Amino acid sequence: MNFKRIKNIIIGKPIKTIRETKERVSRITGLAVFASDALSSVAYAVEEILLVLVLGGTLILSYSPFIAGAIIILAFIVIVSYRQTIKEYPSGAGSYIVSRDNLPEKIFLTAAAALLIDYILTVSVSISSGVAAITSAFPVLFPFKVFISLAFIWIIAIVNLRGVKQAGTIFAVPVYLFIFSMGIMIVVGLKNMFLGVPVSSFSAFKTTVLPSVSLFLLARAFSSGCTALTGIEAIANGVGAFKRPEHVNARVALVWMGILMAFLFGGVAVLANYYGIIPQTAETVMSQIGRNIFGGNFMYFIIQFMTMGILVLAANTSFNDFPRVLYFLAGDKYAPRQFLSRGTRLAFSNGIVLLAIISSLLVFAFSANTHALIPLYAIGVFLCFTISQFSMVKHWFKVKTEKYRIRAAINCLGAVLTLIVVIIFAVMKFTHGAWLVIVVIPLVIKGFLKIKQHYDAVAKQLTLEKSPGEHFGKDKTVILLVSGVNQGTKLAYEAALNLEPTRFIALHVSLTHEETKKIKKQWNKYFPDAKLSIVESSYRDIVNCIVKYTEELDRKWKHDNLIIVIPEFIPKRFWHHLLHGQTATRLHYALRSKSHIQILEVPFRLRY
Amino acid sequence: MNFKRIKNIIIGKPIKTIRETKERVSRITGLAVFASDALSSVAYAVEEILLVLVLGGTLILSYSPFIAGAIIILAFIVIVSYRQTIKEYPSGAGSYIVSRDNLPEKIFLTAAAALLIDYILTVSVSISSGVAAITSAFPVLFPFKVFISLAFIWIIAIVNLRGVKQAGTIFAVPVYLFIFSMGIMIVVGLKNMFLGVPVSSFSAFKTTVLPSVSLFLLARAFSSGCTALTGIEAIANGVGAFKRPEHVNARVALVWMGILMAFLFGGVAVLANYYGIIPQTAETVMSQIGRNIFGGNFMYFIIQFMTMGILVLAANTSFNDFPRVLYFLAGDKYAPRQFLSRGTRLAFSNGIVLLAIISSLLVFAFSANTHALIPLYAIGVFLCFTISQFSMVKHWFKVKTEKYRIRAAINCLGAVLTLIVVIIFAVMKFTHGAWLVIVVIPLVIKGFLKIKQHYDAVAKQLTLEKSPGEHFGKDKTVILLVSGVNQGTKLAYEAALNLEPTRFIALHVSLTHEETKKIKKQWNKYFPDAKLSIVESSYRDIVNCIVKYTEELDRKWKHDNLIIVIPEFIPKRFWHHLLHGQTATRLHYALRSKSHIQILEVPFRLRY
Repeated sequence: MNFKRIKNIIIGKPIKTIRETKERVSRITGLAVFASDALSSVAYAVEEILLVLVLGGTLILSYSPFIAGAIIILAFIVIVSYRQTIKEYPSGAGSYIVSRDNLPEKIFLTAAAALLIDYILTVSVSISSGVAAITSAFPVLFPFKVFISLAFIWIIAIVNLRGVKQAGTIFAVPVYLFIFSMGIMIVVGLKNMFLGVPVSSFSAFKTTVLPSVSLFLLARAFSSGCTALTGIEAIANGVGAFKRPEHVNARVALVWMGILMAFLFGGVAVLANYYGIIPQTAETVMSQIGRNIFGGNFMYFIIQFMTMGILVLAANTSFNDFPRVLYFLAGDKYAPRQFLSRGTRLAFSNGIVLLAIISSLLVFAFSANTHALIPLYAIGVFLCFTISQFSMVKHWFKVKTEKYRIRAAINCLGAVLTLIVVIIFAVMKFTHGAWLVIVVIPLVIKGFLKIKQHYDAVAKQLTLEKSPGEHFGKDKTVILLVSGVNQGTKLAYEAALNLEPTRFIALHVSLTHEETKKIKKQWNKYFPDAKLSIVESSYRDIVNCIVKYTEELDRKWKHDNLIIVIPEFIPKRFWHHLLHGQTATRLHYALRSKSHIQILEVPFRLRY
Repeated sequence: MNFKRIKNIIIGKPIKTIRETKERVSRITGLAVFASDALSSVAYAVEEILLVLVLGGTLILSYSPFIAGAIIILAFIVIVSYRQTIKEYPSGAGSYIVSRDNLPEKIFLTAAAALLIDYILTVSVSISSGVAAITSAFPVLFPFKVFISLAFIWIIAIVNLRGVKQAGTIFAVPVYLFIFSMGIMIVVGLKNMFLGVPVSSFSAFKTTVLPSVSLFLLARAFSSGCTALTGIEAIANGVGAFKRPEHVNARVALVWMGILMAFLFGGVAVLANYYGIIPQTAETVMSQIGRNIFGGNFMYFIIQFMTMGILVLAANTSFNDFPRVLYFLAGDKYAPRQFLSRGTRLAFSNGIVLLAIISSLLVFAFSANTHALIPLYAIGVFLCFTISQFSMVKHWFKVKTEKYRIRAAINCLGAVLTLIVVIIFAVMKFTHGAWLVIVVIPLVIKGFLKIKQHYDAVAKQLTLEKSPGEHFGKDKTVILLVSGVNQGTKLAYEAALNLEPTRFIALHVSLTHEETKKIKKQWNKYFPDAKLSIVESSYRDIVNCIVKYTEELDRKWKHDNLIIVIPEFIPKRFWHHLLHGQTATRLHYALRSKSHIQILEVPFRLRY
């Protein structure tokens, strides 16, 4: 039981079911809790735009503020569209729930698959990006970024396994500190810009005339920048956690999130352009801007740490949402039912652990490189937007409330625009990794369907309603498996006779003639009342020998009770298991696949 | 059963026990089979000497032939000493057998521990060194040396799992090719030397006057070179495999091995000195000599490949000997008894796999660097020599045959000399890794003793001779565990009633009030004759709840039959297991640790 003690130390003592309560949050806290995912994307979205533009030469980097502007407009359309969803689904407006309500199976499963992939990537991208903020400030840590990232993922996983609720004022602090410090940076930067403070040397490429550029490059840069919109769903998911009236508060928080995002994202884009920032491998764009404005003083480090902080919180959001989607899926039989159960601390442990494992593998495979992970990212998010908005269109035509045509039109606009982004994204990023997601989503959907099919088949086989099913006869054939003549055998022999068998067979599988002779002699000495049947195995395969023997008996007396009695030694210490063969365990597994057998295990507990 | 098919493809179809035969080898084949280990050490022993000497400056490298001479003299004393052992133990003269016969437990266990470590290191060192021969010839492979080494280890392991006998003429071919090609190289080299053919430029340091040098450095170089003696035990281990009269043939082979070793080792040392070879990281000394003599032509590549070949065979020797020592230890209860059993192909599979795993880990940890592994190596070998020879001294005084005093004196000389080497080695190489062996050997011995203690304790608890032991009463309390109301439950219910219980309890652990209500209703519909007991678990821990319940019952009716009936669903496909909780399995493990319980498993096999 040492494992249990270790678990209690790491995860905490078990919590009673009755202690589950729903904590509600105010607008201010709710904004912080649910907006961390969306706001944190500012930390990498501008960089992604610059990374694409720089391919066309440093001159065209000055397009970045215009691209950022287009993305902000798109964000507002999505937000307006989501405001309607929140009102209609006040208990939780996640894509899965909304689309399950309105669209056919394959489509809402697409939303579910996209959501799960999205949450996994949110963790991988946010943590990689957060660690990049730290390694930008402390380049000496750069070689350890994979290790640091993995450590963060598992710390967040453990915190979530301990069942700390996401809705706590403690979570609001780093978010507001981030907004505040970023705000200062942007204001100081803009002030410098308008006062015409001279910038450092390396931004020599700046001109006032926009150079010519291919539409292709702009489209790619736009799709890269769309990662800024990831995380908007978080508030929709969390509507139920707001104070009453939930939908009103959630809608206000959503709008505020949009305003803050526009300010931060737009501000960073403009400043990156003003300071002529070129993306670097070992230093983030945000870090470069910070260094330009504050010159590596205290304020610069604050910004880096707050960036890390909000990105960790963004990852934390996924640790709440991923298990919840799996819970819904499991409830609908599309996911293994283990995701329905809560751990000792009331958290959905299985989902949390699964998310930590997959995102760790991704971080490891992509060496914690944010840019390599991003192309996988936004496609799932926008797919969810699209499906969710189309569901709403369907919804409006179903409920036909007041002004439903206008509302449907708004959602339809959101759906079409995000669908266009999905297509741009799939085309532009296909060779950069988006193909992976395009391949994985159908596979995941197929998995959902297979699982559902299995559960339905099991339910059909298990129901007592239709058929009387199999049953046992009255005769009892009992086979005692004898590996040696000892106390364990004696105990099992007694148990076997207590079953009052119709037929009793003591069976030993022998490997050599000498063994046969020896065991016969011992058996006759201590068990003179019963005959020992001995089978010699020429292939030294005890398990197979016994299985064949029982199969033959089963054929002979069909529909009787065939009970195999296995004496088992239970070692006292864990390492003692290594000193005893696993024949009994292997026998169990081999025998179990036969239906007309029962296995009676008679444990003999070793005392030392 | 897919696993079985894959296993059959890799390992081969099972072989009947009766097919085990003893193949005998002639002197010529026997020499090749058992000498590969000893002769192959030539490939790295000279290099190890040079690596130490070079620390004192390139000038003193010219001491190497003298050090090699001293080692050859030591080798002959050990060989003479072993000739006596072979005569006295014609069925196998390995250190463990000989010392177990004559010396106290802790000492022969020291020999056993040293032997096991020795075999592991033989594999790691030989393979690393063999791969170094290949990467010297093809420098492009140098970065992949760890991978190539691991591949070789597992190929050899699989060949051994297939049960190919070591004694085959096929094994003799590469050994004689190695001896032959090395012979040509040495003869050509010596001819050049006596004819005074000018050598290439980098050997400019050669002088005819020996420079002054510290005794310390010479002692270190000597101890490094002693790795040349590793593998001498192989013939002693294999006496039983020679044609009759075994000991005569084995002794002849032993002497021939000594002569060949002296020729090859001495020759390489002299040539290395003549060509002024300085050890390099990416090219072995042997490769440098070969390049000097043959200038990278066909003959050079032949030598590199033959070197690789004989080193692989040396590793193969360990794959025969390591499992055999474990077999002897297991027979004496010092090792897990799994090492007693033969696999489907009659090979000692468990020992083979264990050796492959440990040596792979070592190769991985030391990056397949021969020089880093060598300091761990020779100490175990010489410890075995010492213990084996001291055993013989004891033996002579026990048997007191003709001239036993002279024979004892010879063995005693061998023992003392090798003991001195052990001490030199321990001191000189302590900080280079020998400390690891000095720490590990006592730990391994402690393990042996712990294992023996456990087996003795188990035997004492299991014997029927002294005590009547525990037994069951006549009353049967049967608890049926109910997870739901379905066909599986029904089948288990029938099986439970067939046991004709004195008391019958149907038990369900419920997590919520709703669940309680629902299951009660269903139960009463289909099982109106029995009452369902329901326990609500406030911590959602079904397993613990049931264990506590049964513990209470056990306390109440001590020494009765307490039979827990568990209905188990057996999924049809492997992946379906993932879709069902492992509660039944966890229950098994939790319940087994109680002695007065029996577990009746009633499998319900799902058909699709």
